[in-house]
Amino acid sequence: MSLAVWTRRAFVAAATAWAVGIAGCAGAPTATDPLPSWNEGASKKAIVDFVAAVTSNGGPSYVPPAERIAVFDNDGTLWSEQPLYFQFLFMIEQAKAAAPQHPEWRDNPTYQALAAGDHLRALANEKELFQVLLAANAGMSVDEYDQRVRAWLAQARHPKTQRLFTEMVYQPQLELLAYLRTNGFKTFIVSGGSHEFMRPWAERVYGIPPEQVVGSFTPLKFEQLGGTLTLVRQPGMDMNDGPTKPVGIYRQIGRRPILAVGNSDGDLQMLQYSTQGPGRRLAVIVHHDDAVREVAYDRQSHIGRLDKALDEATVKGWTVVSMKDEWNRIYPPAK
Amino acid sequence: MSLAVWTRRAFVAAATAWAVGIAGCAGAPTATDPLPSWNEGASKKAIVDFVAAVTSNGGPSYVPPAERIAVFDNDGTLWSEQPLYFQFLFMIEQAKAAAPQHPEWRDNPTYQALAAGDHLRALANEKELFQVLLAANAGMSVDEYDQRVRAWLAQARHPKTQRLFTEMVYQPQLELLAYLRTNGFKTFIVSGGSHEFMRPWAERVYGIPPEQVVGSFTPLKFEQLGGTLTLVRQPGMDMNDGPTKPVGIYRQIGRRPILAVGNSDGDLQMLQYSTQGPGRRLAVIVHHDDAVREVAYDRQSHIGRLDKALDEATVKGWTVVSMKDEWNRIYPPAK
Repeated sequence: MSLAVWTRRAFVAAATAWAVGIAGCAGAPTATDPLPSWNEGASKKAIVDFVAAVTSNGGPSYVPPAERIAVFDNDGTLWSEQPLYFQFLFMIEQAKAAAPQHPEWRDNPTYQALAAGDHLRALANEKELFQVLLAANAGMSVDEYDQRVRAWLAQARHPKTQRLFTEMVYQPQLELLAYLRTNGFKTFIVSGGSHEFMRPWAERVYGIPPEQVVGSFTPLKFEQLGGTLTLVRQPGMDMNDGPTKPVGIYRQIGRRPILAVGNSDGDLQMLQYSTQGPGRRLAVIVHHDDAVREVAYDRQSHIGRLDKALDEATVKGWTVVSMKDEWNRIYPPAK
Repeated sequence: MSLAVWTRRAFVAAATAWAVGIAGCAGAPTATDPLPSWNEGASKKAIVDFVAAVTSNGGPSYVPPAERIAVFDNDGTLWSEQPLYFQFLFMIEQAKAAAPQHPEWRDNPTYQALAAGDHLRALANEKELFQVLLAANAGMSVDEYDQRVRAWLAQARHPKTQRLFTEMVYQPQLELLAYLRTNGFKTFIVSGGSHEFMRPWAERVYGIPPEQVVGSFTPLKFEQLGGTLTLVRQPGMDMNDGPTKPVGIYRQIGRRPILAVGNSDGDLQMLQYSTQGPGRRLAVIVHHDDAVREVAYDRQSHIGRLDKALDEATVKGWTVVSMKDEWNRIYPPAK
């Protein structure tokens, strides 16, 4: 996978109208329902039936707790991804901040477009765009970068909702993660985003610890920097997206998941890989069809082509979640 | 890191005299001692004091359970590594088995040396040796390779001890792993060996699940093989050794360990990285000085140079474990 694909996906909705809406008609959760933000319907039933089956000791579909591995994509699956991947917004801010140290960018049309917020124009020269972004997000220690991520997330707000980005996670998914863990599952993120952008908040927000975050990887070197041996970020990215998601799962988890949740073709191979194993499996696709409370971008998560994962879902009987119809709440209350 | 270094380390002891001895003078373990195979002494005291300090709630060195990350090298730290890394013995057997499909190897002096068991001669042309080994250990699905690993480990025996390789783990380390977990630590392997060679048995033998094994990584592609989409092994290896061990820790664990255990310069940077963080830290080096019960190779774990980690241990006050003096038992009872 190339960074090009990642960026192209990131930029898809630059021209998409954004519609905001929070928690339209959330009913009062009942004490016994672990998934109160999920309306009764096909998706909720598929999930609850699956969990009941694999946890039913002595039943034909029983799976021991150690093998109850659940993997979740992040962008568009656990939190929003429009109008740009949030990590992308952060990396662009890093580039702007680094501009004084890069006089060679001054007359560079790609950088000028970035600085002006014209993301589609910036994308006209992908190669140059990557060079700018990767240069701006490398060269420092992982500890310094971690501080930058935390500082940005603590104050940056979404251009339309004005929420902190970490408050744009999906409430129904928070409930699903907790429900799975209550039932002995180990929950992992398997994302095209980077480890270092997710780990600082994934434990607090999702209950997913750093060692259960699988992402795209920035090359590192353990070397002297400012008199200290430290891990220094190198310009580059080992992508964890599409066909490399099963590779990332094998590398970092080492067991085949029995439950996989995604939303786009970046997740297709992860869904294929997870459902290939023996025994009962569940694949879930979050379908972005809610123009009022989020964005109805349907299968246009890539520029220039339509996601095929929804077609494969039809053929294979995967569970497709209509955000519009099956989620009675999108985001948790803002703080 | 290159595979060359890995191989050179593997071959170091080809000419080393091997001395076998099991459980010389194991005293009867007391009911209250979690480390009965460790003699009373400086190393045991350092470990027990460290664990007491970081688990003492309210104390100045207290560490919350989630951050009690302990990392262990495998070869030479959790199990023996002489006369060759055991994974190497397996890979050589794979090359012999694959020879009929590689007529081009027939007149190749490197392959001839391998087939004859003359490992030092095989190493004379490192580049060719890697090509042979990597070619023989690639091209199949990860599932098929997993079956080969399991089949080999189930019957292959160590040339000197005649034990199964999985019975050449160190009994004192099994106790240490269990002791740490009892005290809320999460235990990880961080090895120059490959994930796929350790995971099939690490959970059963060490109590370390697949997702807590960090190793050198064989490149994979998710592609069609025999009509099925599967993960196919590619010739190559992304080494997890020396300066890349902190990188592997960052990538797969995402927290800085507070306890690191190794035995050679392949572990030096892991020990440096782990001890750099704030608060109390412990670095432990297993010193191979027992010529009777194992092999006294001291600091010669690489061909042609001496490990420096023991020097750094002296300077920094790291704990050096004399296998000869501090372990009253080397291996668990054979089955």
